Amino acid sequence: MDLRRLQNRLQAFADARDWNQFHSPKNLAMALSVEAAELQEIFQWMTEAQSRELSASQRTALADEIADVQIYLARIADMANIDIEAAVEKKLVKNAMKYPVI
Amino acid sequence: MDLRRLQNRLQAFADARDWNQFHSPKNLAMALSVEAAELQEIFQWMTEAQSRELSASQRTALADEIADVQIYLARIADMANIDIEAAVEKKLVKNAMKYPVI
Amino acid sequence: MDLRRLQNRLQAFADARDWNQFHSPKNLAMALSVEAAELQEIFQWMTEAQSRELSASQRTALADEIADVQIYLARIADMANIDIEAAVEKKLVKNAMKYPVI
Amino acid sequence: MDLRRLQNRLQAFADARDWNQFHSPKNLAMALSVEAAELQEIFQWMTEAQSRELSASQRTALADEIADVQIYLARIADMANIDIEAAVEKKLVKNAMKYPVI
Repeated sequence: MDLRRLQNRLQAFADARDWNQFHSPKNLAMALSVEAAELQEIFQWMTEAQSRELSASQRTALADEIADVQIYLARIADMANIDIEAAVEKKLVKNAMKYPVI
Repeated sequence: MDLRRLQNRLQAFADARDWNQFHSPKNLAMALSVEAAELQEIFQWMTEAQSRELSASQRTALADEIADVQIYLARIADMANIDIEAAVEKKLVKNAMKYPVI
Repeated sequence: MDLRRLQNRLQAFADARDWNQFHSPKNLAMALSVEAAELQEIFQWMTEAQSRELSASQRTALADEIADVQIYLARIADMANIDIEAAVEKKLVKNAMKYPVI
Repeated sequence: MDLRRLQNRLQAFADARDWNQFHSPKNLAMALSVEAAELQEIFQWMTEAQSRELSASQRTALADEIADVQIYLARIADMANIDIEAAVEKKLVKNAMKYPVI
């Protein structure tokens, strides 16, 4: 995925609608959290086993929410000038140290 | 960002720690939502203006949480066999129709 | 508010619908979190000042979400055998020590 | 639980610390959502069965988070001038119609 290109498209989308005034990192963090909750809502009354065997319509709903989370994540990173890929690399190193293979 | 490669690394990480048993989409959705809340927590007592002017340490904390959200998002998409990039493309088209430029 | 009575009514409501199978504390915690996100969604694009001056319809929407959060909170406490009032008392003492008046 | 008394104590607590400036409904909604996520975090890697059989220390942790959610819920309702008990009553009627016993 070309994150830089996605971020540029989201910026153009916001510019065209005069939305930058609403896109403070604080508000984007709220929106991200709300989308993560909508994603979670799909699973709230399922068993774990059921969540591993989604129907086609459940997968469509999940894909829709995954997209929303990805879009707001790309957007907040752009507004706060953070490189997602570098942040992920750093975190993978940190996690490898935090959870050593026994 | 090479999402496929990230997903393979996360899979190998989980395999090595015998974590697949915990990584049901239901549990990963919960973890994603918790990480989104931790990201949001950074901003909860800030004004919007302050959130647009983060300090270096605040940006480091934010990058750390952004990484966690990205990692769980890649992981849940992988476990549910969803193509994030295709889902994002579909959503951008949907959003363009939902919010026409006036 | 008579929490014990509310919890008994929620229990009867779940019994009549055979919902106890779904009301594990894990699932109720997910539902609580989703409702808290729906409550938050009301405010996500508002300024703080606007959130202090809600319209009648916004207040109605907020009251609806507050009720959902209160209901799931009462329910999870009941299912986990926790006394909300005692927990709140304990927390108020803890907070008074954590945040002394200067 | 005497919600009015709790709300008066929370108001006095905020007054003494000059916190009213931070306690916009928007910010309180964020804080509520963060606390609901912390509550949920307790359960994220548990099975549903495990969540029905909490240890003493898990119950203590849960009680602590339940208190935080209750406190912010009481506070936001107070700041937005909403009667929680009345809202809950209204919702119980709504739910009874939405989910009839078959």
